[in-house]
Amino acid sequence: MEVVMKFMDIHSGAKGITKEMLESEHQKDLNAQKGTDVKFTGAYADPKSGKLFCLSEGPSLEAVKAVHDKAGHEADEWYELPLEVK
Amino acid sequence: MEVVMKFMDIHSGAKGITKEMLESEHQKDLNAQKGTDVKFTGAYADPKSGKLFCLSEGPSLEAVKAVHDKAGHEADEWYELPLEVK
Repeated sequence: MEVVMKFMDIHSGAKGITKEMLESEHQKDLNAQKGTDVKFTGAYADPKSGKLFCLSEGPSLEAVKAVHDKAGHEADEWYELPLEVK
Repeated sequence: MEVVMKFMDIHSGAKGITKEMLESEHQKDLNAQKGTDVKFTGAYADPKSGKLFCLSEGPSLEAVKAVHDKAGHEADEWYELPLEVK
């Protein structure tokens, strides 16, 4: 059975980020995850505070971190999200 | 035209939270939002660090804060999320 863990990472310092910039940066994650079991599933940004929240899935924290770092997105904080309600 | 803004709020100090606790707390938001234009759309939790991330929508920050506070969920941090990629 494949184990899929969910994660959120947080970046600070993205003040003034635009939709185009967010899409472009997310595309870098999509490129970096090719050939891996990692999926960057979405991201939210608050241009006012400069906070950026990225959601990802993968077999381990190390695996998703490696992809994000490769894309040039070293995050300030990482959290595993085993619990979710919708 | 109805304006719908998206928000994320963050709680600290939820170490050891369980799926049942998260569902029960989320239900309090669903109850508190009745009769308002606010929707708490989901939440993620990391029992290890004790971080809890709630997603919501509504006409204003004040409106969603009022519902969350009414449910007994005064958050540590609030962010508006005008930008999103999937």
